[in-house]
Amino acid sequence: MSIRIGILGYGNLGRGVECAIRQNSDMELAAVFTRRDPAGVSILTEGVPVCQIDDAAEWKDKIDVMILCGGSATDLPEQTPKFAEMFNVIDSFDTHARIPEHFANVDAAAKKGGKVGIISVGWDPGMFSLNRLYANAILPEGKDYTFWGKGVSQGHSDAIRRVEGVKDAKQYTIPVESALEAVRNGENPDLTTREKHTRECFVVLEEGADAEKVEEEIKTMPNYFSDYDTTVHFISEEELKEKHSGIPHGGFVLRSGKTGWEKENSHLIEYSLKLDSNPEFTSSVLVAYARAAFRLASEGASGCKTVFDIAPAYLSQKSGEELRKTML
Amino acid sequence: MSIRIGILGYGNLGRGVECAIRQNSDMELAAVFTRRDPAGVSILTEGVPVCQIDDAAEWKDKIDVMILCGGSATDLPEQTPKFAEMFNVIDSFDTHARIPEHFANVDAAAKKGGKVGIISVGWDPGMFSLNRLYANAILPEGKDYTFWGKGVSQGHSDAIRRVEGVKDAKQYTIPVESALEAVRNGENPDLTTREKHTRECFVVLEEGADAEKVEEEIKTMPNYFSDYDTTVHFISEEELKEKHSGIPHGGFVLRSGKTGWEKENSHLIEYSLKLDSNPEFTSSVLVAYARAAFRLASEGASGCKTVFDIAPAYLSQKSGEELRKTML
Repeated sequence: MSIRIGILGYGNLGRGVECAIRQNSDMELAAVFTRRDPAGVSILTEGVPVCQIDDAAEWKDKIDVMILCGGSATDLPEQTPKFAEMFNVIDSFDTHARIPEHFANVDAAAKKGGKVGIISVGWDPGMFSLNRLYANAILPEGKDYTFWGKGVSQGHSDAIRRVEGVKDAKQYTIPVESALEAVRNGENPDLTTREKHTRECFVVLEEGADAEKVEEEIKTMPNYFSDYDTTVHFISEEELKEKHSGIPHGGFVLRSGKTGWEKENSHLIEYSLKLDSNPEFTSSVLVAYARAAFRLASEGASGCKTVFDIAPAYLSQKSGEELRKTML
Repeated sequence: MSIRIGILGYGNLGRGVECAIRQNSDMELAAVFTRRDPAGVSILTEGVPVCQIDDAAEWKDKIDVMILCGGSATDLPEQTPKFAEMFNVIDSFDTHARIPEHFANVDAAAKKGGKVGIISVGWDPGMFSLNRLYANAILPEGKDYTFWGKGVSQGHSDAIRRVEGVKDAKQYTIPVESALEAVRNGENPDLTTREKHTRECFVVLEEGADAEKVEEEIKTMPNYFSDYDTTVHFISEEELKEKHSGIPHGGFVLRSGKTGWEKENSHLIEYSLKLDSNPEFTSSVLVAYARAAFRLASEGASGCKTVFDIAPAYLSQKSGEELRKTML
């Protein structure tokens, strides 16, 4: 019997989950739920219903895990606790500072409903967090580094689009190669924000807009750009569409640490991702953790979990025996 | 209260465990057990007894986790099941082909004694295995690559030392940079043994030995060298001591995979280690999993586990709340 998955929210992430389900032979897509008029939403999988989000409760016994594909700002803080009472749920909540609060809300709801909720699943938070934890546990004396990119930051692209005179824009976060190299060489550098990443912006201007003024406004924007070396390129709408329509991302998690009686030996642990599609990769992680949620729930578990709480074997289709034989 | 650790076997690995314990404030070394005459074994930690291995049973209630630091060829297949009946145990059993059998033996013994045994802990098997599992679960359609080095292979160094005319030797396994790059570029190459690694040997000859004959014998040695491009350097005993006495190692685990409805997007997951001291890093992993064994046993678990079965949070000194706040 397949694990029956529901997708709640059908944007880039929801579509990514739909694609990922097709790559996992032990799963099937049961239904997609949307706030839009279902008649206007066409999905890729044939024969699967698109339903109104308000009708989700009717699917309580027909869905094993609901994957919540909304945004962290307003959707998930409300949706994850709400649906965790009815379904085993997975989300990709990524507002780091609000995770403790979100965890508490989902935990209470999931326990009330006897369900499992796994939050903050993806690559950061997610796989990057796991690598920070493993590396810190192994090398208690050391230093952590996270670099992001090269990749598109949706938040920064949106910020540029809000500047007067900007028609469209795409922003790339780029790790500073020399900083990465210093970390890899075991120099344990103290790096400022500016030393770790640069920001590259591709901007389409509205007709008659003042390029110089727009560039100045972007470069001095607090929080988003003022602490970085920022480059602004003005390009045509066609070029933006042609060369910058992908959503690549990635990054690096490194820990360098010491061992030995006199701390005479150095070690470097590095984990990196190079992703053509940020949402599709995140979706693939969500789907693997949906398998874990299903299994944990089958064993009688309930409450909120994060990637830290899930034994790796739960993510794989293979049995423990097969895993030990083929991957250990 | 500290977690009381016993070390069984005091070679490079045992000494590494001793050093790692000092870096973990929630642990203390209770005793070291050796097959040698304890009077002849001096350890680094002051005030800790060195005992005969046959007296280990007397420590049943004074040790929370016994870390077995013997070899995989003959020590661990016998020791791990034997001691798993009395103690929670950790080992670094690394004969991949015999893991299923070892697992079964340790599982039966640990269940009989109501103890937890975690086997095959280290970096390969260990952290590399974990990364293979995570990457396969996330990207079900893709290709795995493992490269080792640059690092010293003890087995290959030993094999050279057995050649007639060789006084001493050190062998380095070196990943082929162009093969690594092809994988990173998403070319999904099919790589032969020869295309993945080269072998570099530093050899000290016995007086009067025939260098040409020794070189030929090394390069054509089946299993060890014949399938590789091997370089042999003859050096003096002093140079070997001076430049090649370390035990560095490391390697790379990569998985490249596709996502998307038409598999139109590529992704690369890479994990790598650069280690000054292979045994000290392995020891550091062993000690982190000793913490997990202690906690699992405290919760009433028993039987054999591998790194696949252990939720990451069990490895860390931090509480779930702290982990979510600082590392997620």
